[in-house]
Amino acid sequence: MNRVFTKGVGLVKVEEHWEKGIDYLMTTAALEAIKNSAIERIDAIYIGNVCAEILHHQVQLGALASENLGLTGIPSIRIEAADASGAAALREAYLAISSGMIRTALVIGVEKLSDGLPEEIVSITSMFDKYEYTGYQGFTQASLAALLYRHYMERYEVSQENIAQFPVIMHENASTAPHAQYQFKISVESVLNSPVVSEPLRRLECTAIADGAAAIVLCGEDALEGNRDEAIEVASVSMSTDFVSPFDREDPLKLSAVSIAFNDSLTRAKIDRREVDIIELHDSYSILAPLILESTGYSQEGRAGIDAKNGKYSLSGELPINTFGGLKARGHPFGATGVYQVAELYLQLVGQAGKNQVDNAKIGVALSLGGLAATAVSTVMRAR
Amino acid sequence: MNRVFTKGVGLVKVEEHWEKGIDYLMTTAALEAIKNSAIERIDAIYIGNVCAEILHHQVQLGALASENLGLTGIPSIRIEAADASGAAALREAYLAISSGMIRTALVIGVEKLSDGLPEEIVSITSMFDKYEYTGYQGFTQASLAALLYRHYMERYEVSQENIAQFPVIMHENASTAPHAQYQFKISVESVLNSPVVSEPLRRLECTAIADGAAAIVLCGEDALEGNRDEAIEVASVSMSTDFVSPFDREDPLKLSAVSIAFNDSLTRAKIDRREVDIIELHDSYSILAPLILESTGYSQEGRAGIDAKNGKYSLSGELPINTFGGLKARGHPFGATGVYQVAELYLQLVGQAGKNQVDNAKIGVALSLGGLAATAVSTVMRAR
Repeated sequence: MNRVFTKGVGLVKVEEHWEKGIDYLMTTAALEAIKNSAIERIDAIYIGNVCAEILHHQVQLGALASENLGLTGIPSIRIEAADASGAAALREAYLAISSGMIRTALVIGVEKLSDGLPEEIVSITSMFDKYEYTGYQGFTQASLAALLYRHYMERYEVSQENIAQFPVIMHENASTAPHAQYQFKISVESVLNSPVVSEPLRRLECTAIADGAAAIVLCGEDALEGNRDEAIEVASVSMSTDFVSPFDREDPLKLSAVSIAFNDSLTRAKIDRREVDIIELHDSYSILAPLILESTGYSQEGRAGIDAKNGKYSLSGELPINTFGGLKARGHPFGATGVYQVAELYLQLVGQAGKNQVDNAKIGVALSLGGLAATAVSTVMRAR
Repeated sequence: MNRVFTKGVGLVKVEEHWEKGIDYLMTTAALEAIKNSAIERIDAIYIGNVCAEILHHQVQLGALASENLGLTGIPSIRIEAADASGAAALREAYLAISSGMIRTALVIGVEKLSDGLPEEIVSITSMFDKYEYTGYQGFTQASLAALLYRHYMERYEVSQENIAQFPVIMHENASTAPHAQYQFKISVESVLNSPVVSEPLRRLECTAIADGAAAIVLCGEDALEGNRDEAIEVASVSMSTDFVSPFDREDPLKLSAVSIAFNDSLTRAKIDRREVDIIELHDSYSILAPLILESTGYSQEGRAGIDAKNGKYSLSGELPINTFGGLKARGHPFGATGVYQVAELYLQLVGQAGKNQVDNAKIGVALSLGGLAATAVSTVMRAR
């Protein structure tokens, strides 16, 4: 397998872009990534997106992006794996370059949720689970996350205050991130006093409607022209799947897709868990942060919230997570999120993270989930 | 790049499966393909599908298929490129095996259009084009195909009778194909006298609402255990894109995505155009058959209908096309179609095509389109 590198990224600020269409968002991110990468020829395009057909009545985003970018004549497709779509698209680009069939690829994650009403977006999340079973009964992703949350607190005898640490860290990190949706800090009290979405899950523990687009240019080693210092290796991208509904799994609090993908990605990258400097993880609901940190072995079962409270996962802590605010505060435009995560690791590893820079970061891992970890993608990025 | 082979396929009969869900359809095809391939371990799943989110309120088909097939723990994603989705999914599986990252892959194409009303499905086809422009104005794919049709007849001074040869060939071939939607013959007169869909396009020149699923197991050379005689090589899979709307192209009657993908696939497979024994092509509207045959150089411009009339493209002709009835008569379940095409080539090359067998067929090419050739995928299959 050929080695794969990232040479440049493009990020649109996450917010509600009322006046911009999905074309405009993806083109903006893509052109910025191409410019930053200084790569002149793109061999293929991979797009992560979930909702274009239901919200914009548009499929075939691949060909649409080719046309908009003046790149007709090359392969271009859309990948969908719920809100892991962006990471899944990156994985396909990684494999295509690994195979030697192409030398460079443009990965775009894009989503424009503000074209739906809030209740429509909540309803759309029920598509992430098995609609014929849970969605049809009225279960949303938030209500299923709330069940996991309650189960977690009961089994491990942990108070909500511990879990509520995570949104606080996210907003802390986002407060200095120019592309983040919510650039302000919040307190544990404000989280615990925010309205209930689905008992015990509070509003400040959920993500909000967000539009965004992120793009990354990947290339093989032979296409690493010019300034090699700005190239970061995509050391591995591993994916796994699990029973779609958490409550069909042997233990709903163990995210086996995360464990499998994470361990496989470390093995392929030939690194140890302790060598990882930064984790970008999928906190679409606050409870997922501890579940991911425990499924990857960074915290003991039931302890992640306490570790967070003790500063382990803060920007200046032992293992910084979600260094630009994660899904909660940078924002969660579904199909774009996985690409934002990897782009943010790139900024950290290349030393372009501004006020959010983690010193001496050499290895970062992005963990992207589809739904409540029915799909998991683990991407290892390594500075050269 | 590692070589890639097909060892078994599974085909659900194309029809309106009122009593079966999308899960059931894809599981049925997949289990049959796995059984026929005699491959015990599947490393990844690739699914081609267009409409699940809009018709069934379901995304993340990848994880859903893993669960239904008892294959949780492996990578599994959905690929979308309008009605080229199945072929695009096959291409990703091909690249993943080529890269050496995985040894075997299951490719599933699935679509269940009967969950929509006929007018909804017509409306859905407008998603294939640029919805903000053509769809919003009320253009359907059929109306755009009709404009191409009229332009073709005027430029080349060809009568409709010539183009109407293609649906006749399709139904002729489907009449003996057990998995075909319409197993009966039609005459040129019946085509020309069928109701107008969009002047000059007639009903018997269009595909109908169809449900279906097709699956193929791909593997690398090292996974070719057991009976090697039943392995057919996937010699190459190439893809290209073009301006989404035909009327934005320099010449709407030249399908450049088809030419580029087709020529690239021949070059990569190191074969000459004249060595091809069978073509499976994308006749979602009758006019696309001549446009494809002329864009690949098998007929001169404006001559494909006349060649068809002279028997060149019939099952017993010089270059048989759509040997089981093609999109028109085998049926066109959007995201499944590209997988049906390649599966049918497999049946031909391995000598399991029954009454539709083309003698001594060694090389087949499947040409799958997204919309009106905004996307094109060309797959070369070669007997060992």
